[in-house]
Amino acid sequence: MTVRRLSVYTRCLLQLEEDGVKTISSQELADRFNLNSAQVRKDLAYFGEFGVRGIGYYVSGLKAELQKILGLNRDWQVALVGFGNLGSALFHYKGFARQGFRISAVFDDDPAKWGESVGGVSILPLRDLLRETKARNLQLAIVAVPAESAQPVIDKLAASGIKAILNFAPGRTKAGKDVRLRNVDLSIELETLSFYLAQGSR
Amino acid sequence: MTVRRLSVYTRCLLQLEEDGVKTISSQELADRFNLNSAQVRKDLAYFGEFGVRGIGYYVSGLKAELQKILGLNRDWQVALVGFGNLGSALFHYKGFARQGFRISAVFDDDPAKWGESVGGVSILPLRDLLRETKARNLQLAIVAVPAESAQPVIDKLAASGIKAILNFAPGRTKAGKDVRLRNVDLSIELETLSFYLAQGSR
Repeated sequence: MTVRRLSVYTRCLLQLEEDGVKTISSQELADRFNLNSAQVRKDLAYFGEFGVRGIGYYVSGLKAELQKILGLNRDWQVALVGFGNLGSALFHYKGFARQGFRISAVFDDDPAKWGESVGGVSILPLRDLLRETKARNLQLAIVAVPAESAQPVIDKLAASGIKAILNFAPGRTKAGKDVRLRNVDLSIELETLSFYLAQGSR
Repeated sequence: MTVRRLSVYTRCLLQLEEDGVKTISSQELADRFNLNSAQVRKDLAYFGEFGVRGIGYYVSGLKAELQKILGLNRDWQVALVGFGNLGSALFHYKGFARQGFRISAVFDDDPAKWGESVGGVSILPLRDLLRETKARNLQLAIVAVPAESAQPVIDKLAASGIKAILNFAPGRTKAGKDVRLRNVDLSIELETLSFYLAQGSR
């Protein structure tokens, strides 16, 4: 099962919980959130213990289990590297904190920003990345620097013991086998849409 | 086949082309880009006509075909709604233009921004969204407004004839059946990483 689908199910279950729904079958879940019902059934079968024959799954119990698997039952200390437009937008993105991701240190190479405080978090010099990441015990990092700076930043993060990096900078980057590096390519999302427009205009 | 995988293959083929690679087998493609080889083989079998037995696929031919399917062989006129931190970051995101997505109109509700020009594109009043979207024949829209404004903006975009919307605002949104609405949830990307960290700390 892809981790992404676990995330999607967790969101659906959170919504159901907000709506006061106590139990749901895999078919109802699929219908309600427009998911592939065969896939949902197969995926959730893995969590059979949270299901009740003829009723479905307990929304809160299944949600809590998925959150635990996704590591969302605890807080993660996140380093944000790069505080330009994108970095600033990511810092203020409300979805992160809601899932337990706390950006507790921000790094930038612009001296004019050093010492500035955003939402109680200080902006630190990029050159202190290695030391501060270790000292603050940061666990995850978000990279929002220009393309040409991405690889050196990723190398420094890896050297400081960071094991998981979400990179928004375009271009090729790599990390060692013990570091999980994920590249976000926002244009892929637009391509999904142009695909449908292109099919429609045929 | 998911559209997302088509996008991924297209990127891999672009890189191979840059590297001067002329032909590649599905196995080599999988190895080189760390993809699931059974999946790649199955997916590319669909494009058998671009393959040569014992050699593999012609990189340029297959790339061009995938681009055509994804609607990347033409330019799309994109409306960007919301020019705050995230909107500004998305406007300057280089990956969009590279794939043929041109942000040709920007809308915001802050009068201080109206008439301002960013990279040759004027910032227009949000209240003119309906009229301007029609007049400028915009085809795709990116929504980067606060959560509470997202649904009314999506409704207006749909009313103006936009058929594909990429929404970055959190929270629930919906659109009619003839509009393809895609919500980008950036925290899902982080969750993939926390999943691995959580597994590792068990």
